[in-house]
Amino acid sequence: MDAKVDIKQYMIQLGRQARQASRAMARAGTNQKNTALEAIAGALEAGRETLLAANRSDLQAGRDKGLDAALLDRLELNDERIAAMAEGLRQIAALPDPVGEISEMAYRPSGIEVGKMRVPLGVIGIIYESRPNVTADAAALCLKSGNAAILRGGSEAEHSNQAIAACIHQGLQQAGLPDEAVQVIETTDRAAVGELITMPEFVDVIVPRGGKGLIERITADSRVPVIKHLHGVCHVYIDERADVDKAVAVAFNAKTQRYGTCNTMETLLVHKAIADQVLPQLGRLYQQEGVELRGCEATRALLKEAIAATEEDWDTEYLAPILSIRIVDDLDAAIEHIHVHGSGHTESIMSEDIGRARRFLAEVDASSVMVNASTRFADGFEYGLGAEIGISTDKIHARGPVGLHGLTSQKYIVIGDGHIRQ
Amino acid sequence: MDAKVDIKQYMIQLGRQARQASRAMARAGTNQKNTALEAIAGALEAGRETLLAANRSDLQAGRDKGLDAALLDRLELNDERIAAMAEGLRQIAALPDPVGEISEMAYRPSGIEVGKMRVPLGVIGIIYESRPNVTADAAALCLKSGNAAILRGGSEAEHSNQAIAACIHQGLQQAGLPDEAVQVIETTDRAAVGELITMPEFVDVIVPRGGKGLIERITADSRVPVIKHLHGVCHVYIDERADVDKAVAVAFNAKTQRYGTCNTMETLLVHKAIADQVLPQLGRLYQQEGVELRGCEATRALLKEAIAATEEDWDTEYLAPILSIRIVDDLDAAIEHIHVHGSGHTESIMSEDIGRARRFLAEVDASSVMVNASTRFADGFEYGLGAEIGISTDKIHARGPVGLHGLTSQKYIVIGDGHIRQ
Repeated sequence: MDAKVDIKQYMIQLGRQARQASRAMARAGTNQKNTALEAIAGALEAGRETLLAANRSDLQAGRDKGLDAALLDRLELNDERIAAMAEGLRQIAALPDPVGEISEMAYRPSGIEVGKMRVPLGVIGIIYESRPNVTADAAALCLKSGNAAILRGGSEAEHSNQAIAACIHQGLQQAGLPDEAVQVIETTDRAAVGELITMPEFVDVIVPRGGKGLIERITADSRVPVIKHLHGVCHVYIDERADVDKAVAVAFNAKTQRYGTCNTMETLLVHKAIADQVLPQLGRLYQQEGVELRGCEATRALLKEAIAATEEDWDTEYLAPILSIRIVDDLDAAIEHIHVHGSGHTESIMSEDIGRARRFLAEVDASSVMVNASTRFADGFEYGLGAEIGISTDKIHARGPVGLHGLTSQKYIVIGDGHIRQ
Repeated sequence: MDAKVDIKQYMIQLGRQARQASRAMARAGTNQKNTALEAIAGALEAGRETLLAANRSDLQAGRDKGLDAALLDRLELNDERIAAMAEGLRQIAALPDPVGEISEMAYRPSGIEVGKMRVPLGVIGIIYESRPNVTADAAALCLKSGNAAILRGGSEAEHSNQAIAACIHQGLQQAGLPDEAVQVIETTDRAAVGELITMPEFVDVIVPRGGKGLIERITADSRVPVIKHLHGVCHVYIDERADVDKAVAVAFNAKTQRYGTCNTMETLLVHKAIADQVLPQLGRLYQQEGVELRGCEATRALLKEAIAATEEDWDTEYLAPILSIRIVDDLDAAIEHIHVHGSGHTESIMSEDIGRARRFLAEVDASSVMVNASTRFADGFEYGLGAEIGISTDKIHARGPVGLHGLTSQKYIVIGDGHIRQ
């Protein structure tokens, strides 16, 4: 496919097929969906050699193109990663089926009963970079939540993704579900993404996963609602009334437990009255781990090793062993700093004072707000969602880690017995 | 303001002010918000003469422009309508405050407690036609849910809306809340709407109220999420196993209780096996009310008074005493007709058969799905929401009647005691 018109026709065809398949998926029973998930897991394991061969050709092409080591690592499949994909599918099969869940049924004065029923969204478009395992994960979450999916992975993983798609189709067929319930876009032409995000008649929601630039572009151009998070500039604020030991442990964990994740702390805020009790200890711990410190002037007076932070530092998601530190006058100043510089992802206060904790919880506007806990807990598994398709920093629809529920909607149901409105 | 650049600057200023005011609104206590609502109600009553004078000048301008009688009626304020606005505000004051509501708190294996807290969306833009009472209603719902509002009413109601805005500001001031919490756009230039819907940095959600054309245009151009419903093509399906008396009563009520509402039935579907038991009765009742009937061929064999329905009829929201009727072979055909022609608003089945009712509830994709009840019940007051800003036929965020909860979002909250991630 070369011409733009062909891409458009191709995408419309995928969209129509997905819309059609979404009706079968919405009606599919829990057992049928779980059978498909187990069968896909089995097909991935049985197809190990085929998957590895397809992946080798992607890796070779990647090396020829000069991809860097980190990208090649993400692209690589091996026995362990294939086993992990299969295990992930079986975990999703084991989760409760969200579809059909009825809640809040109550009688109204008119005599009708009114409640809500959870139903699939319909068709979900997922755009992601070159991690082949996302193809299996994303397909499984859409399948379990009764949705059809159109997947668009990074072009570097083209062959791996098609090989995984073949396993998915095998599993769907075994369960008597339509192949078109999960479609992996077969062209690497970027125009396909442009079409996917502008077909609201066929696609109900777009979930982009990847760098901030990609997600911003998709959000700006999409005519379909987008569930997204742009980036994570997360803070821990150590309040004057913090317990020093807990504060040190959490601030250390939030930065160093993993550097490359969006819920990692990027800026530490410290109340001026407690700074000299926590910063010297923390500075030593960070230095032992090789974390580069960038501080405000007051911080640098306490931590000789810290270099001067610039205004840009307060807005930066390092995803690296770098931490910016700012000493603030009070809780209000901490909340204000977070309001101006935070990304709405995850914010935590360390304080033993219930009034201050209560204010922080109520006033900080982020998808997760924490008291006396590490920002690293902001995660679908830690929150008990079982699996997540991503973390939303939007306020509309799903906010925070998005699991199966985030891929569904609730419609009202009404039961009467011949009731008419007066 | 004439030049486009001035409109842009003006809207950016409104947006900045709204964003700023939204922080004060998010922190405002329940009493403070209720005090403002009561004070606005008092100001509307006390300002009756001023409101009527402003409204007279809108009405005069409307008559000069040749507005039709229905539009002039919607535009008109009188003592009764002012009293109704004030009463509406007091009812919203009496509703529970949704902000801060904590739910689903539970311990996780790691020892942290995770739950959700309901919080305002931030800034809500509302675009509506020339009913001045919407200015007070919409402002009150945004205020109670802790949001700031930017309101854009129809230009025909310009003076009335500004007079109501003055009462709103008086009430906000009495409660110590910022004027900018509710801003009524002061220009009738349509470019202002274009700016309002493309400022995601200042506006979190747009609620358009009005005709289908207006809402479609706004949805197509908006860069901000839109809570909307386009139109209502609602069906009642009388199943073979319906109770004839209940079916007749509901089908009559769903069409005739009010003609101009979006939850009014526009098409009646009847199972072929029960058509000769229900249609002659219903035909007589509709004729007594002066309802024009448009039927499929099978319907016309039973109802001589019915004219032939065209394909277009199945897709038409009449908002008038007109009803299209189709006889279908079975439940599947009814669900298929609704899938093709329904607007996703409200659909009802009349059946005593629990299996068929269960299938209809699960398989029909609409914001409200009913069993043995009139579609006219699809309404925020009837559902117990207390008040509604509109009905959403979208699947994302809010679906069905949208009350205070639909103007809020839920963030995750986490309580630990120095917990770190392993």
